[in-house]
Amino acid sequence: MSTTVSALVTPTAGAPFERSTVERRDVGPHDVQIDIAYAGICHSDIHQAREEWGSAIFPMVPGHEIAGVVSSVGSDVTKHQVGDRVGIGCFVDSCRECENCLAGEEQFCLKGMVATYNGRQYSGENTHGGYSKQIVADENYVLSIPEGISLDEAAPLLCAGITTYSPLKHWGAGPGKKVAVVGMGGLGHLAVKIAHALGAEVTVISQTLSKQEDGLKLGADHYYASSDPATFTELRNTFDLIINTISADMDIDAYARTLRLNGTMVFVGLPENPQSFKAGSLIGGRRSLAGSNIGGIRETQEMLDFCAEHGIGAEIELLDATDPATIDEAYDLVVRSKVRYRFVIDAATI
Amino acid sequence: MSTTVSALVTPTAGAPFERSTVERRDVGPHDVQIDIAYAGICHSDIHQAREEWGSAIFPMVPGHEIAGVVSSVGSDVTKHQVGDRVGIGCFVDSCRECENCLAGEEQFCLKGMVATYNGRQYSGENTHGGYSKQIVADENYVLSIPEGISLDEAAPLLCAGITTYSPLKHWGAGPGKKVAVVGMGGLGHLAVKIAHALGAEVTVISQTLSKQEDGLKLGADHYYASSDPATFTELRNTFDLIINTISADMDIDAYARTLRLNGTMVFVGLPENPQSFKAGSLIGGRRSLAGSNIGGIRETQEMLDFCAEHGIGAEIELLDATDPATIDEAYDLVVRSKVRYRFVIDAATI
Repeated sequence: MSTTVSALVTPTAGAPFERSTVERRDVGPHDVQIDIAYAGICHSDIHQAREEWGSAIFPMVPGHEIAGVVSSVGSDVTKHQVGDRVGIGCFVDSCRECENCLAGEEQFCLKGMVATYNGRQYSGENTHGGYSKQIVADENYVLSIPEGISLDEAAPLLCAGITTYSPLKHWGAGPGKKVAVVGMGGLGHLAVKIAHALGAEVTVISQTLSKQEDGLKLGADHYYASSDPATFTELRNTFDLIINTISADMDIDAYARTLRLNGTMVFVGLPENPQSFKAGSLIGGRRSLAGSNIGGIRETQEMLDFCAEHGIGAEIELLDATDPATIDEAYDLVVRSKVRYRFVIDAATI
Repeated sequence: MSTTVSALVTPTAGAPFERSTVERRDVGPHDVQIDIAYAGICHSDIHQAREEWGSAIFPMVPGHEIAGVVSSVGSDVTKHQVGDRVGIGCFVDSCRECENCLAGEEQFCLKGMVATYNGRQYSGENTHGGYSKQIVADENYVLSIPEGISLDEAAPLLCAGITTYSPLKHWGAGPGKKVAVVGMGGLGHLAVKIAHALGAEVTVISQTLSKQEDGLKLGADHYYASSDPATFTELRNTFDLIINTISADMDIDAYARTLRLNGTMVFVGLPENPQSFKAGSLIGGRRSLAGSNIGGIRETQEMLDFCAEHGIGAEIELLDATDPATIDEAYDLVVRSKVRYRFVIDAATI
């Protein structure tokens, strides 16, 4: 009824990773079995593995930035075939019936989408993510990774890529638009690449100028330090769109005032604490604060195709997981922003 | 060089109103002189007369909901003629050169528009508002009030009307859209009328059900009490747009969760305190919090024409200001939400 697969498992909240196994269901008629090649490490893996976002399910196999190759397909599968380069992102199922699913926005499924890990299938079984050798998922929730992006650089696109692409598209980033990217990490560096490829004028606002050279190389036109108060004076009434990738507490009013008329500041990270703002900062320029959450399957595929067309992949540091402690160390580095710009686990070493 | 005009004046912050005079400039080539017929009392008059919004200019003649008849025009005036029914709203000039002015959004003038009262002309002289017999203003900042709205019911449209019409239009209120109006006061009752006339399905969320009968009569389809916690459970994922007319502190997350996918909650009032929200409340449905500030001259005219076409005026209580203490009493009633729904001063009694 199931297959036992090697995986990196954290047995309880915050416990070190261990090499262990996880059960994958047999391949059903609509299922695709994927031999995982690479799995990215997303900051939200850390939040969940450390149970910082409320009660989580253990033992946990994190990972929702999955790239690999199809190794088996069910009898009714039409979208993928053995040998295809594919990916899985943050969810592996949704109700398919609510207005949001029907609109292709499965990430906002009103029943609640099934998270790739730390979630439960509608049938009740726990889900396990990409820090493993193999995964089985419904073909409709499996993306095609085009030739032209290597699988290791593609993996982070499945979460970090779509998380930034979706709001950039939704709020119209493109020629003639000024986009600020706040934070120059895993999400931020992809936001810069994608916004630049979309034709927008891109400004990075990072805590310091330490990554300025990288930012400009990746496509930013301007680079400012948020630690310099002059930044916020100079940038008043400037941006059409701010993609805020940081989860720390921040002076929202200062950022809001850098928006020009009708501008929007979009949160794609999830700050631990409530954030406060003055309504006047919004009213003074018909400005908006918004939130965006990954993207639907259709848009995720569109993002992958766009990235392939524009030669966009994540900047990665590849991890050998032969010693599972490598993952624990990588987590600490991510928390301290000491990664340029995404750790990716080589699944051959799991 | 100027004309002395009877006016209701508050000499210092919070002081009782007195009948006094104000100087109006001579009618310049581009100016229109208006015999004021009616002036609405806006809650923001109270905030400014009591200096609750920071330093204000005294003596003060409030009033930016002005309706009257043209009594004189300058030599170069083309838009209005003697005898025309006209109005003045929240501003009487703007720089006319910045990108927002050029876009017809003078309310967001980057130089700062000239407020109708408690403001300063670019030449330096203080401005005085509608609680007076006469006013002189540049023709470009004077609106035409169409036949079909009485001047007394039109006056509040110049602020309360455009404040609600502009976000309703900007965020696409219309057939098939569900709009919530939070607060059933001077702004809220007009939001209900206008949203209904635009074809939206309208829900009022008021503190209690005390004004339910009125709300339904004015065009609301549904009416809920915010004091009943069940309201927020029942209304989850419902609205495309919330027009928030209240300035009190509120549980923004509870309201945000009543927005459906891509929904927006717009602040049109100015809460005294910073407001707090959880980013997750926005991220969970690509929701937005926004602010909107009155409207430009072009849109204000469009609003007046729309209201005339749909027979929309404010619900008013007409005030005889023979005893200026009537204004002080009216202010207290407005603060206690004891007006249905807008006080309008009969300028013949000033």
